[in-house]
Amino acid sequence: MARIVRIAGAQLGPIQKADTRAATLERLIALLRQSHARGAELVVFPELALTTFFPRWTIDDERELDSYFEREIPGPDTQALFDEARRLKLGFYLGYAELAREAGTLRRYNSAVLVGREGRILGKYRKVHLPGHTAPQPGMRYQQLEKRYFEYGNLGFPVWRAFGGIVGMAICNDRRWVETFRVMGMKGVELVLIGYNSAAYDPNRAEDREGAELRTFHSRLAAQAGAYQNATWVVAIAKAGVEDGAGLIGGSCIVDPQGRIVAEAKTLADEVIYADCDLDACAHGKEKMFNFAAHRRPEHYRIICERAGAWVPEGKESW
Amino acid sequence: MARIVRIAGAQLGPIQKADTRAATLERLIALLRQSHARGAELVVFPELALTTFFPRWTIDDERELDSYFEREIPGPDTQALFDEARRLKLGFYLGYAELAREAGTLRRYNSAVLVGREGRILGKYRKVHLPGHTAPQPGMRYQQLEKRYFEYGNLGFPVWRAFGGIVGMAICNDRRWVETFRVMGMKGVELVLIGYNSAAYDPNRAEDREGAELRTFHSRLAAQAGAYQNATWVVAIAKAGVEDGAGLIGGSCIVDPQGRIVAEAKTLADEVIYADCDLDACAHGKEKMFNFAAHRRPEHYRIICERAGAWVPEGKESW
Repeated sequence: MARIVRIAGAQLGPIQKADTRAATLERLIALLRQSHARGAELVVFPELALTTFFPRWTIDDERELDSYFEREIPGPDTQALFDEARRLKLGFYLGYAELAREAGTLRRYNSAVLVGREGRILGKYRKVHLPGHTAPQPGMRYQQLEKRYFEYGNLGFPVWRAFGGIVGMAICNDRRWVETFRVMGMKGVELVLIGYNSAAYDPNRAEDREGAELRTFHSRLAAQAGAYQNATWVVAIAKAGVEDGAGLIGGSCIVDPQGRIVAEAKTLADEVIYADCDLDACAHGKEKMFNFAAHRRPEHYRIICERAGAWVPEGKESW
Repeated sequence: MARIVRIAGAQLGPIQKADTRAATLERLIALLRQSHARGAELVVFPELALTTFFPRWTIDDERELDSYFEREIPGPDTQALFDEARRLKLGFYLGYAELAREAGTLRRYNSAVLVGREGRILGKYRKVHLPGHTAPQPGMRYQQLEKRYFEYGNLGFPVWRAFGGIVGMAICNDRRWVETFRVMGMKGVELVLIGYNSAAYDPNRAEDREGAELRTFHSRLAAQAGAYQNATWVVAIAKAGVEDGAGLIGGSCIVDPQGRIVAEAKTLADEVIYADCDLDACAHGKEKMFNFAAHRRPEHYRIICERAGAWVPEGKESW
């Protein structure tokens, strides 16, 4: 019996700072209903799907910062979404800012949860590859302060048995790092869910060397290569459009285990894309070209795990 | 001062079993001269550029097998190529079958050498990711016996200071494995040279689920992702066309550090493609998006190096 999951990728248009939480939640619920009407079993929302991408601002007031975070999930601002999804028997992936109490300390993470069709939280992922800076860059109107507002994810890259297969999660910048996909590939992953907020251009510079087209190409390339090279489905879903004056790429897509895009968003607004994802289609790559046990040679990979930074010794001819 | 290297990718059309070594060498020398006339400094030839892709045959006679291998490089069958390259002050990458005597034992490798503009061998690489089988598959006219005829490469993935930058090598199937590029990326690589012979279809089956178009897409995807995600130039050069009844994809390409194809072969025959590769263009990615020291989190990558095969525990809900 084929394991086919109808997946909806619910791209969001921008969420402005001035938008109310209630208005945003209504948009998410509308996308849920739309997905359900098309027969989806699983809806993928973007990273930080409940608020604007606030790491672009320098926020010194702790209370203001906390207003972007969820103390519990579901919580007062998200319960209606969880309730509606359970009513519709729709699973979902939701990216959000998590304020966690761990060993008596408050910690902030850029997180995502995977919710099953019965409304149960099946798993949580905390973003490992935080981009940006720990301190505001002087003179810049727009910042990228993820390294300031979030801790590095401390849960690794787990996978879960869910939706009839093996499911993993990643968030935004994680998808550019081959290790993200490979770690989950090593765990037999068949479906990787990813939400993102990716700049369409540098909002601080009128002349940007990398425009939206190149950045959208990079986003697709990372998803397609991750899918092909690990023989897995990949669902990569954007928050898109101009948010508080800063542009975000769209390009939300669903990629099959051969690396082919089978569904792609056409707009920079709220838009749902769909695909019937046959999880059995992963077996071909996993058994043949990417049969890890038969072909990988980890004795030659050690430097990947031994250090973070590149190693370029002075004065050597070869290394 | 910009570090611009004019690189020629010398795709080869098929080399039939019946072709003489002398005729093949003449083709390589013709491509050298063509590259020199266009001002190239470095020419990249394919994998196993001196012979047909012999691992498609079951060869039990050791002497017949040895006839595909070089006992020394340069040797009687390749000296003219080395001489002409030195005369033209042209560096090159050449893939060949290597018969090496190591600790008194004869060993066979699928190898490539990097030769400098003064004719000196700067480095050697031996293919790590051997595809195929160790024994002939019964009833199949065409085999893939690389695992039978070659030892796994025992030199790792070295890089060399050459052509004004940091240069690495890989061979064919290596390029599909993210670890190949990443290990060299960890060593600051700026230019990865790759020769390949990749099947255009399964020659044993009239109906093949993966045709030449999809396989060429995969070849490009691997090169483009490897380039972008490690901020390096990639030159990937095919032996192409129908060789002894089995089809090989073309799609030879030169990829910039943003993952964009800047030159691509149009035929399945002997054809040279060119690009002026600015090695300084790697710095942007290495310092920003792919600043490994700033952004990699190797504490979460351990499984990549700890084992070869995937780990899918029975009866667990999450791992």
